Formats: sequence, structure tokens, C-alpha cells
Amino acid sequence: MRGEILSVGTELLLGQITNTNARYLSERLAEAGVFVYHQVTVGDNPERLRAAYTAALQRADVVIATGGLGPTYDDLTKEVLADVLGVPLVQDEAALTTLRAWFAAKGATFGAIQEKQTMKPQGAELLPNPRGTAPGVLWNRDGLVVALLPGPPHEMRAIFEASLFPLLRAASGEHLLSRRLRVVGIGEAAIQERLSDLMAGENPTVAPYAKLAEVELRISARASSDADAEALVGPIALEVRRRLGYHVYGEGDQMLHDACGEALRKAKLTLATAESVTGGLVAERLTRVPGASVYLRGALVVYSLEEKPRQLGIDPQRVGDGVSAQLALDMARAVTGKLSADVGIATCGFAGPEGREVGLAYVAVAGALGEKVRELHAHGDRQEIRERIAQAALTLLWEQLPREE
Amino acid sequence: MRGEILSVGTELLLGQITNTNARYLSERLAEAGVFVYHQVTVGDNPERLRAAYTAALQRADVVIATGGLGPTYDDLTKEVLADVLGVPLVQDEAALTTLRAWFAAKGATFGAIQEKQTMKPQGAELLPNPRGTAPGVLWNRDGLVVALLPGPPHEMRAIFEASLFPLLRAASGEHLLSRRLRVVGIGEAAIQERLSDLMAGENPTVAPYAKLAEVELRISARASSDADAEALVGPIALEVRRRLGYHVYGEGDQMLHDACGEALRKAKLTLATAESVTGGLVAERLTRVPGASVYLRGALVVYSLEEKPRQLGIDPQRVGDGVSAQLALDMARAVTGKLSADVGIATCGFAGPEGREVGLAYVAVAGALGEKVRELHAHGDRQEIRERIAQAALTLLWEQLPREE
Repeated sequence: MRGEILSVGTELLLGQITNTNARYLSERLAEAGVFVYHQVTVGDNPERLRAAYTAALQRADVVIATGGLGPTYDDLTKEVLADVLGVPLVQDEAALTTLRAWFAAKGATFGAIQEKQTMKPQGAELLPNPRGTAPGVLWNRDGLVVALLPGPPHEMRAIFEASLFPLLRAASGEHLLSRRLRVVGIGEAAIQERLSDLMAGENPTVAPYAKLAEVELRISARASSDADAEALVGPIALEVRRRLGYHVYGEGDQMLHDACGEALRKAKLTLATAESVTGGLVAERLTRVPGASVYLRGALVVYSLEEKPRQLGIDPQRVGDGVSAQLALDMARAVTGKLSADVGIATCGFAGPEGREVGLAYVAVAGALGEKVRELHAHGDRQEIRERIAQAALTLLWEQLPREE
Repeated sequence: MRGEILSVGTELLLGQITNTNARYLSERLAEAGVFVYHQVTVGDNPERLRAAYTAALQRADVVIATGGLGPTYDDLTKEVLADVLGVPLVQDEAALTTLRAWFAAKGATFGAIQEKQTMKPQGAELLPNPRGTAPGVLWNRDGLVVALLPGPPHEMRAIFEASLFPLLRAASGEHLLSRRLRVVGIGEAAIQERLSDLMAGENPTVAPYAKLAEVELRISARASSDADAEALVGPIALEVRRRLGYHVYGEGDQMLHDACGEALRKAKLTLATAESVTGGLVAERLTRVPGASVYLRGALVVYSLEEKPRQLGIDPQRVGDGVSAQLALDMARAVTGKLSADVGIATCGFAGPEGREVGLAYVAVAGALGEKVRELHAHGDRQEIRERIAQAALTLLWEQLPREE
């Protein structure tokens, strides 16, 4: 099935917001077995909207439009769609009754605006909106699926997931199932070398995507059922994990701080960080994880050069210009004692933008997992360099942590 | 002038990446006086690409296409454009000589791929790429401007800013000039009340956009020159600043940590943070600013409950469940002394997702600027709550800092 995504909104054409809805819907449609061939964005102008609908209905089997359904909106989207489909706009009596009851229960005034929200092209159905008042609209006849969804992403997603994804997946007869393995401490070239035979496959496909100081490996299979797709993806995922070992730290949206937190919790180890160049970023990432207080003792951010020796109890002679392998190790050792942690990690480096050796950094681990220090040369702007250094510190920690192989 | 943005790339249609190029170009075209009426995304398919070009050239005066220009690419975009324009693809001899010399200087092999990069539709010119090897292409004849730019955002932006923006602004004869004032510590409703007369204006327009725990006020004017537009925008910006006072902390992309850093530097004050719920986020934001070591002494992240009294030298009796106004103040006081700073700020709170009173938090300032503590009830998911609390801490600091009125 061919898909098309139609985004409606002047704020998109003015560049005031990024079109994240188009990305989300494209990805989910691919997973439902619908191939998106066009994404089109137009404003609230009736003629251009009509032309966009007409073109989309001619070339696609599934058209998903977002935007232009809000209560204060002029409901242009619905009217234009009804017109292009050649049917009148009619009142959905059941939806009207429900919405009226909902407003009465809340003691709110039910007016003309609300009444308009329960209109639909004749032959279409309204899709309930669990996150807002504007319902979606679904036209599903003669092999053509057209859906109108509200623009706010959380409302759009809620309706899409509840009402559209299952329907489209069943209609397409084909499932795309993807698993995303997250990989650190090994570059894309080395991954390709180890997985070249798997990456030559066509179903499932295995493809690497470079992220910030890590790689996402996407294993995707097409089949007529989830079980069949999983039967294709599962063994390949296992084989990739066998070949890459501990470099695979997690799956899906899991991040390296999640994996480190989980491993620390299982090993019953406590952690502290001493950060200069990352300014607290390593601790901040670790504390994104709910329940981090079980293993994270805290962090010392030593940012001014003269504070380093005093705060950490390090010989000022050894601080130098604030960036060395020895200093990173001293910092990791010192914070382990200072914050009564089992393990300490530390960062120091030059983030720029001014000065010599921008990007040079050291990360270190000390304490119960042994001592290790690593030099890196991070590239990018100041913030990207800091993020790469934080990721390198977590990677070093991950490599030392005990884990199930 | 009417504009259209054409994005080329299968990864966009698969939802693997978000189309940030379309947003960027739309915003900059609006500022150049070009009104974007369509954004269209297609894949690498020649027929669909041809149809997209044909439609764009019929309805727009300015067409900017991105993607499909890389060295390993099949140069489909250029070929299709030449075909739609009815001209052959020809070699740009000057560009060929330059690129060959560049490769020779680097000792790299110059091959067929590189030679292809210096092809162009006859009558077009190549635009130098300061960030990569694939040059852009510009067709500028008979009132029609068509530009092809590479897909990677930093390459696309570099070519657009150097070669296209000035040309388009001169051609459109109309300038849109926007100034964005950044506002904290006052809600959208209160802003609208104070600025209702200004917000009713049509040129310039004044519009608020809600951001995370702050508001961006966009003042935009259209005129035939920058000077004329500035003459419209300038007085309104001054008037907004007069009415909102210190709530306006900066302009454009400046963020609250930038403004706080600048004010600390001017006042020759040093700062330290004591963070529990924000886990280092306040310090991390402050250290994004180059040169922060001048005023930022460091940070203490006290995350485990038993560490709090020990690290900060606070009476354990007063720690309680780790969240109170008194504790926030104690933390701010303690870190001021511990890190020898003039001013200390502190955060404590419940970020969830589990537990009672999720979102309840306290932020405090102590030291040379006096003492102040504020309770807040932050909403959103765990990370959003943490970001709101960090922003509240910086807002409280901003309010206490000396500034020029």
C-alpha cells in the first residue's frame, strides 16, 4: 500500500516549528507495511489544501493528514476533504450526545465551536481523542483510507496508535518489525567488518546508524505476522550480540546511562562522579533514571582550576593545566573516598571554543572495579565535545562493570 | 515571491530522520521575503522526483531542493533538474580544475565520482561548499531561482547563508525582520494583559510562544529594507522591555544560563550549586557557556539521602525526607561556604515518576545576594520536571542578580 502524509499549518511553512509528526507517522506507517512516497506540507489556504488532497487521493491508498482540527479553527480541513470526496459534511449525532454530556458533567458551556467538532464527511467516522476535545476523522471505503488527525503531537499519536495503526497493519497484510541494538566502544567500520555477511541480507536487513559516540544497529524484517517477523529478526539479533559481545549495551530507546544504572544496581555497587569539563553532565544523565539514588552517591563538579586541589585533596603540583591522564585518575580516586562510593568516574578536558587542543580529554574509573584511564579527541562544537566526553566516561564505566555474557 | 522546499531522501520517507532542513529554510526564506507555500518530500525515485520538480517550477518563483548531492550518490537530483529545465548536464571546467588541485594538494585520488560533482545543468552555476566536497547548484534565470543543496544540515546552511540568502533578499525587495525577546518569571496571560495593545498591531506583529518555563516574544516587521524594518521593530522592542522590565532576560538564541553567566561576570561574583533533584543539570547548563570557570566555582550533587548531611555539613535532623524549603536554603548556604563562592543556589524536589507529591520542589539562593527560597509544582514527565526545576533555580538567581535597567 502507498501512503502519503499531508501536514497542514502555516506555522510549519513559516519554519516556526519542526515537523516531527511527519517523521513519526512515516516511521509507524513503514512498520505497518505502508510505504510513504510523499510528505506534503501546505498552509490553511482552501485552494492549495484542495489541490494537495486531490493529488494525494490520486496517488496513494492511505492518506494521513495532521493539523487544522482545533476548536477555534475554521474546520477547513474537514470541509475541504468532504468536498474532494464529493460528500456533504454531516453531524455525528452519537458524538454530539457524548460531547454534550461530557461538557455538562464538567459544568462547561457547550457552544457552536464544540458542535462543529462533531461534524464529519458523510460516510466517515469520528475517532475518539483520549488527549483532547478534537476527534479524528476516518474515511475507510473502496480501498482508500483517509484520516484527519489533530496537530498537537501527543493527541495525534494517541489517536493514531489506538485507531489507525492496528487497522493499517491488518489492511497491508505485511508487518515490518524492527529491533534496534545499541552499541558503544566499537566504530562503524569494525562493526561492518564483523557483520558483513549479515548486512548483505535482504530480509531481515541489518543497518548501522551513527549516533553521538555510539551506533544503532537496526534489524528489520517483513513478514505477514509479528510472529513470522520475530522468527526472522530474533536469531539475527542473537548472532549480532554473540559477535559484538558487551559492545551491545541495550535495545530500543535504552541509553547508556540506563544500562550503567541497571548494572550498578544488580552488582550492588555505588558510584560517584568528579567532573570538570562535563560540568555535571555525567551525573545529570545518571539521575535521569528513576531510582538512581540507590547507586548514585553524588557528584563533585570542580570547575575553577584553583578549586580542584582543595575540593579533591589533590596535590596542587599535580593539577597542572587541569587536563591530564594522571589528574583524571586522581579525581576518580578522590571522589570515591570523598563521597564514600565503591566506584568513581572522572572527566577533564578542553571543550573550547577557544584555546589549544580543543577536544583533548581524559576519562577515568577508579575504586572497586580497578583503575582505568582513557584519552580521547572529541570533535564538534563545545556542547557536542562535552557530550562525547560524558559518553566516553560512561562507556569506560560500562566496560568495567560486571555483566551477564 | 513564492517559495517551495523540496526535500529528497528515502530516510525522510522512512521516518529515520526529522526534516530539520525544511524548518530552517522555511524560516530563513520568510526572513528573506519569500513566502513558502509548499514543502514536499520525495525519495530517490526519478519519476516522482521529476513530477515534484515540474509541480514546484509551475507554482513557485524560488525552489530550494536539499539532498541527493553526495559523492557516492547517483546525482539523480542534478540530472532530473537539467531534464525538467530542458538543458543538458555539462562539466564546470573551473570547478573541475579547483577540485582537482584540492585533491592533489591533499594527495587524494581524484576519480569519476569527484568529476561528477562538478557537473551542472547548462546555464546554472556551482555554489562553493565550505563544509564539504559536494557543491550546490544555482539556476537563476528569467525570474526563476532553483537551488540544489546537499542534505547534511551544516553543509546546506553554509551554502545557503553565503550564496542564497543575500541574493533572495535582494530579489524579493521585502524584508522580514524578527527579534525574539526571551522572558522568564511571568506567565503568558500576564504578558498578554500588559502588551494587549502591542499584540493587536499588524506591522510589526508581537506574538508570544510558550517554551519550557519561559516565553519567547517574537516582534516581526515587513519593510523594503533592514533599516525600515528595524525602525518598526526597535521602538516596540524597547516598549516591551520597558513594560516587562527584568523579566526580559535576553534576545534571540540566548538562554537563561547565558544571561546569568554574563551578569555574574559583570558583577564579579562567583557561584556554586548544590543539587539533588536536578542531579547536576543547573551546573551543566552554566558550564555550556565558554569561560564559565571565571564565575562558576563548581557544584555538589548530593543524590543519596544519607550523603546530604555529611557532604553539606547539615544537621541530619533537618534533612527529613530530603525535600523542604529549609533544606534548600541550608544546601545553598552550605555550598557557598564549601566551595568558597559568593553566591550559592540549590534545588531539591520529587521528580517521580513514582511516589507522592511528584513535581513539588524548592529552589534557593544564599550568599552575597541575600537569601530567597521558592516553592514550585512542576508538571510533565521526570525529565521535564527536572528541567523546570533547573530553570526555576536560574530564574530565582536571575531575579537576585544586579543588572542594568
